[in-house]
Amino acid sequence: MVRTSLRVRLLHIETGGINIVVLNSDQAKDLDLKHLDRVRVFNHSKDMICSIDITKVAVKRGEIGLFVEPEVKLGFKDGDELFIESVPKPKGLGAIREKLDGKELDKEELYDIVKNIVDDELSDVELTAFITASYCKGLSFEETYNLTKAMVDTGEVLDFGKGPVFDKHSIGGVPGNRVTMILIPIVASQGIKIPKTSSRAITSPSGTADTVEVLCPVTLPKEKIKSIVNKLNGCMVWGGSFNLAPADDKIIKVEKPLSIDAEGQMLASILAKKISVGSNHVVIDLPMGPGTKIPTHEKAEHLTEVFTNLGKKLGLKIECIESNGSQPCGNGVGPALEAIDVLKVLTNDPSQPKDLREKSLIFAAKIFEMSGNAKKGKGLELAAKVLDSGEAYEHFKKIIKAQGGNPDVKISEIKVGKFIYEVKSGCKGIVTMINNKAIADIARAAGAPYNKGAGLVVNSKLSDAVNENDTLMVIHAESREKLLRASEVLKDKKVFTVQ
Amino acid sequence: MVRTSLRVRLLHIETGGINIVVLNSDQAKDLDLKHLDRVRVFNHSKDMICSIDITKVAVKRGEIGLFVEPEVKLGFKDGDELFIESVPKPKGLGAIREKLDGKELDKEELYDIVKNIVDDELSDVELTAFITASYCKGLSFEETYNLTKAMVDTGEVLDFGKGPVFDKHSIGGVPGNRVTMILIPIVASQGIKIPKTSSRAITSPSGTADTVEVLCPVTLPKEKIKSIVNKLNGCMVWGGSFNLAPADDKIIKVEKPLSIDAEGQMLASILAKKISVGSNHVVIDLPMGPGTKIPTHEKAEHLTEVFTNLGKKLGLKIECIESNGSQPCGNGVGPALEAIDVLKVLTNDPSQPKDLREKSLIFAAKIFEMSGNAKKGKGLELAAKVLDSGEAYEHFKKIIKAQGGNPDVKISEIKVGKFIYEVKSGCKGIVTMINNKAIADIARAAGAPYNKGAGLVVNSKLSDAVNENDTLMVIHAESREKLLRASEVLKDKKVFTVQ
Repeated sequence: MVRTSLRVRLLHIETGGINIVVLNSDQAKDLDLKHLDRVRVFNHSKDMICSIDITKVAVKRGEIGLFVEPEVKLGFKDGDELFIESVPKPKGLGAIREKLDGKELDKEELYDIVKNIVDDELSDVELTAFITASYCKGLSFEETYNLTKAMVDTGEVLDFGKGPVFDKHSIGGVPGNRVTMILIPIVASQGIKIPKTSSRAITSPSGTADTVEVLCPVTLPKEKIKSIVNKLNGCMVWGGSFNLAPADDKIIKVEKPLSIDAEGQMLASILAKKISVGSNHVVIDLPMGPGTKIPTHEKAEHLTEVFTNLGKKLGLKIECIESNGSQPCGNGVGPALEAIDVLKVLTNDPSQPKDLREKSLIFAAKIFEMSGNAKKGKGLELAAKVLDSGEAYEHFKKIIKAQGGNPDVKISEIKVGKFIYEVKSGCKGIVTMINNKAIADIARAAGAPYNKGAGLVVNSKLSDAVNENDTLMVIHAESREKLLRASEVLKDKKVFTVQ
Repeated sequence: MVRTSLRVRLLHIETGGINIVVLNSDQAKDLDLKHLDRVRVFNHSKDMICSIDITKVAVKRGEIGLFVEPEVKLGFKDGDELFIESVPKPKGLGAIREKLDGKELDKEELYDIVKNIVDDELSDVELTAFITASYCKGLSFEETYNLTKAMVDTGEVLDFGKGPVFDKHSIGGVPGNRVTMILIPIVASQGIKIPKTSSRAITSPSGTADTVEVLCPVTLPKEKIKSIVNKLNGCMVWGGSFNLAPADDKIIKVEKPLSIDAEGQMLASILAKKISVGSNHVVIDLPMGPGTKIPTHEKAEHLTEVFTNLGKKLGLKIECIESNGSQPCGNGVGPALEAIDVLKVLTNDPSQPKDLREKSLIFAAKIFEMSGNAKKGKGLELAAKVLDSGEAYEHFKKIIKAQGGNPDVKISEIKVGKFIYEVKSGCKGIVTMINNKAIADIARAAGAPYNKGAGLVVNSKLSDAVNENDTLMVIHAESREKLLRASEVLKDKKVFTVQ
């Protein structure tokens, strides 16, 4: 194949994704290269595949513009000589094309696509085509299975041997809901291995990893995570700490702006992460209610069935629990305010949110019964004992310390946003509806999750009787500007319905 | 809504499409803005909607990076103050979301989407989602109708009044095939109005506009086009000369890399362009054969039916003609070599390609019969008379002159690539197969369409008897390097099958 010699011009701009190099438009015509065509970019020692972008101004004939991603990966400098030659399209593209026509993809085809995704070889157009085709045409059981395997195989894995290793996952959509942070110390303190990795918020006010981070670091090297779990049975780290099913994040980046959550891809991404951390027993929280991903009981039953069957084929024992997703779980929404809820439950504080305590116990109980630590029907008793005795809190402190945090932090020492705005009822009555989505939007506008102390505290829950001047919710922000921003969002939303 | 003040930093790089501004990652977190979120960018006098890109290096906190597109549209300079505030997502996005779920879209929804496409308000992800959803779920007859109307309504139109105005279109995929350039002077010389706009090549070796451009300019102002047609009844200009159904080009930019050509979108884009130039009578060429878009007779019949019905609803009289698409039409492939074919047919040169002459006469005949210039069954006779008498060539020269070209150019004056490579038959036999796709790839590698003299000449057609050393094809390039490139492509392809 014919190669062309070019001089590097660094552009100092990230693309945020795929590897792109920029050619002058006349040169591109000369080489018959079009927008998004692939080229191999190389010199005597380095080599990578990039997509072409075309410019009239930024790059002259004879030059090649490098965005930050290929600059970093290749280590080239301004003026270096390098070569390009055209290369065939990525292998997965043919399979994406077939999926658009409704063909069922086999193991190799799905592997090719996922490998291309992980290696940043697909353009936004091509990746979107795969995701929307999978959404429109659906993924079969077999395809979902093979997609899961491909996601695992293209990432790093942890290995804790063949003994029982547990995990827990929530389908999400419920503000607060920091069950994981209470559940982990309860079950890990009883010798159950549970290497929990969690995500950060994308559109929510806080992910579990964001909240844990109020108390200790969550980005730990893979070996450190392994040693903590081997010593304490549990951890609470960020899933991005190592390269865990990396295709998933790239798929989510496309799904989010389209507000789609293709079932097959959701199943594959959840289970791939569980397998990658070495789990073989998983409890899944299916929060049901308006505004969650599970609007009806039928949808929950359907998901339970596919999760269980898919788990069986993948060697995972899976149990699903339907929970109430119609309002926030706990009172705090936002990293610090949620961390306070967690500490209150663990220390049996009188002002602890009862709903968060109960939900955490139910999930711990399920794990105890699956592991054999408790007989069927006796898990709840054991979970409550471990929590109330302070054993869970002691174990929690050990994990926080092992991850590099201060285990003795007091609730009063956790900083929350000083700029506050109280939302009053306006009338006397009963709370009949709480809008999860509005709560999330307001907490984000107040600065969560990036401002750890920002968010809100929900004082009134469904069925509570309230008076005209009762405070239903308190917004916290770390600056006056953010508080203003949150109150602007509040204006447009109906958060509570009082009747 | 809260506004943020920022200082402009120009990036001097094009995005090639949507309007993007770049924020520093810390500032984006502060404002809770994510990759591809929309903001309104404005100062006291200017205003536009842009998508957000996020950088750690190129832009500092307090700055806003402008790609070339928003720089040009807004006219800002380095250091200018401007403001941003977040805005809702584009209106069409909700409709795209519904199409993903298989909902039939109504007139308003399709208009919103097309308007967003024309205004560059959709990201690649969102535009791709619309196109793939339309492909996977299909567009109904009603949707295709409304999409066509929306494409017309969001672009410029020409108006030649209510009398009959003709147009011609080929579905494409056949190298050479410059029927338009022969047909236009034949029918226009007889008083039939035919304001022909053509496209440039995207992946083919030449579009009609590229070939006409060998003889005269094709990018003319709208008013000039109108005056030429009013005077000479016909023109041969580039469709990009004015803003004709502009959504179409943006849709094609996504379809090409995915190699999809959704039927509904194809129908809408073709007919929208015809309506926009004021046509009400259209003849459509359906080239049938391997490697074209119409592999079977059934597909051709189906397209004939939908074209006719859709035309009826849109007020267009449409006739479809199935043609032979199994080999190039004419001998030359590439702008100059095709222009030579056209001149040979128009001047009745003994070496003229017979197939191109015949096909052009068939299409001219159909138009004569539709217009009433000839009775049914008598069109071919009239077309041949106009061509053979030289009347068509005289009219052709008038159009070339009116568009600003030299009407008296001789075939020998048209420059073709001097670097040539002859492809010989390796055996004696009959040509049983010609690979259109390979011919296109080789001609492009030789430099077509950007190098006007590049391309190839096909000497042997299907069913021709050839001897062992006969020249089947001659490749022309304007440089040794391009000839080498073409011969490299040739190595990998089987262009002719001789048996």
